[in-house]
Order: sequence, then C-alpha cells, then structure tokens
Amino acid sequence: MDFDLATAMPVLSRTPDVLGVMLRDLPPQWASATEGPSTWSPFDVVGHLIHRERTDWLPRVEHLLEHGEKLPFPTFDRLAQARESAGKSLPQLLDTFRELRTVNLYRLAELQLAPVDLARTGQHPELGRVTLSQLLATWVVHDLDHLAQVARVMGRQYTDAVGPWRQYLRIIGPA
Amino acid sequence: MDFDLATAMPVLSRTPDVLGVMLRDLPPQWASATEGPSTWSPFDVVGHLIHRERTDWLPRVEHLLEHGEKLPFPTFDRLAQARESAGKSLPQLLDTFRELRTVNLYRLAELQLAPVDLARTGQHPELGRVTLSQLLATWVVHDLDHLAQVARVMGRQYTDAVGPWRQYLRIIGPA
Repeated sequence: MDFDLATAMPVLSRTPDVLGVMLRDLPPQWASATEGPSTWSPFDVVGHLIHRERTDWLPRVEHLLEHGEKLPFPTFDRLAQARESAGKSLPQLLDTFRELRTVNLYRLAELQLAPVDLARTGQHPELGRVTLSQLLATWVVHDLDHLAQVARVMGRQYTDAVGPWRQYLRIIGPA
Repeated sequence: MDFDLATAMPVLSRTPDVLGVMLRDLPPQWASATEGPSTWSPFDVVGHLIHRERTDWLPRVEHLLEHGEKLPFPTFDRLAQARESAGKSLPQLLDTFRELRTVNLYRLAELQLAPVDLARTGQHPELGRVTLSQLLATWVVHDLDHLAQVARVMGRQYTDAVGPWRQYLRIIGPA
C-alpha cells in the first residue's frame, strides 16, 4: 500500500481509544505484566508512546520541513519515558497520550501537506536520508507494532494456563 | 499468571469493542488487506471469531461439563466461516461478533463455575485431555492472538512505505 495521509490518519487517530478499550479499568495485573526482565508492560508501552508523541513524530515532521537534510533529527533521551511515567496511573497515561495525539494530528492537518511535500527529505542520525512519507508511514506502523505488543504481552501471561493449546497460539510460540 | 475467571472475563468482554475501534469506518483497504495469498484480512479474522464464538468456546465449555472425557469435542467445519461472512459488511460482522460474545459471557456467568469446576476435564480430538481452565485461558489468548494479527496485517501494508525504518519495526520484520 502506498502511503497517503487520508488513509493513514484514521489509524493514527484511533490508537488512544484502542489502548483505552484494551486497558482501562482492567484488573491491574494485566497492565503491569511483562515478558520477563527488561521487557515492557502495557503500562510501559503507553509511557513510551507518550514520549514518542512528545519527541518523535510531529516534532520530526516539523524538523524535516524546516531543515531538510542539513540538520539530522535530534536523538532521543532513552531514559526520559521512565521518568515521565513515574508515579502516574495508567488512566492518567492514557489520558495524556490521547491529548498529545489529538494535538499532534491537529498540527499535522494544519500543515496541509501536499503530495509533493511527502517526497521531501530529512536526515536520520542512524538511517541517513529519509522522506517525510516514510516518517509518517513509520508513525502508523509504530502504533500498530505496540498494539500487537500489548496483545502479545497479555497473551503470554497464560503461557502455562493454556496447557496443550499452546502449540496453536502464535503469540505464545512453541514451548 | 494462573487462570481465574474474574481476571479473564474483562479481557473477553472487551474484544468486540477493541476490534470495533480499530476497524469500524476505517478506509476499506485496511480491512481487506492480507499478508499474501491464503492469509487472512481483518475482515476474515472477525468472521473467524464469529465462527469460533458459535462453535468453540462456550459450546465446548458446556460439552465438557456434560460429557467430561467420555465424548471428544466435535471438530470444526473449517469452511463454515467463509460461508458465514459471505455477502456481509464489516460493520455487520462486528455487530454479530459483539452480540454472540455478550450472550456467551452471560451464559458463562450463569454457569457459576467454582474453582473446583475449572479442574474438570474433557477430551480434545487432537490434544487429548484438557481442563476447563485451559479451555477458558485459550479463549482469552485466542482473542489476543487475533488482535495482534489484525495489527500485524495492517502494519505490513506499509512494509515498503516505511523505507529504512523497517529494521526497527518488529511486526514487519527484517527484509
């Protein structure tokens, strides 16, 4: 599928609600569950999405439009997301994510990007030359990747509980 | 995590809404997208969930409680789900799935299963002896597996569109 804004934006706009329906008011052991040491819980994923909303997608769109390839995107502070989530409840994080996403999609619409803009290029600190279209498509897939992760992390809590059915369940994987 | 009904039921009850938020009124190319020949689209996944709701989870719970290990679960008609989806719209399928799930969770609650019931056993035609607890845990993971699948199928439509970011996106996978 080629990237175009009219197809992509409805996916981006739904992600906060998808996570809200999946996680809000669930028994708390689901949101804090992980896949083992140094892996993320659903709570951590929402904190990560907030951090990327603040530092990655729309800020990089604006950076690319302003600087082109002359100035690489700033790198992330990879510890910031844990600081931002500390002491917050899951409903607070879900609300924050929704607010940030709403504002960012509004700013994106205000840019009134034309097809010719989507071909404009910027400089990624590790990947080199990237297009605006690639950045926006990555925003969409990054959302979907983390939705799949939340489902996978939750499903794997029942790795033992499903007994012999495990072999039929792709998100758990073979024993 | 050990299986218990109070933890599991809120996950089962949310699945129709999660799919509704993800898919309802999206540009139609998302719901019909697949991962290639003989793979399922999000539309197909909802049809599959409807079929399993009619033939698998709650019917097997009732079968196990009635017959124990004496009579194996009936096998599925694997062509039935395509027949049931034929000619239907995605909103129709989402509505049907929600109605069936609501009724089945109501019937499950009416059974008033005690912890001792969860250890009762039945006979799976391929897997052999299974417990009621394993069947119910599998219901939950099966939902989450297909939610992850829907996100993955959608994300993979942008496999080319994300350009060099592909290497960072787990649901697309390496080139």
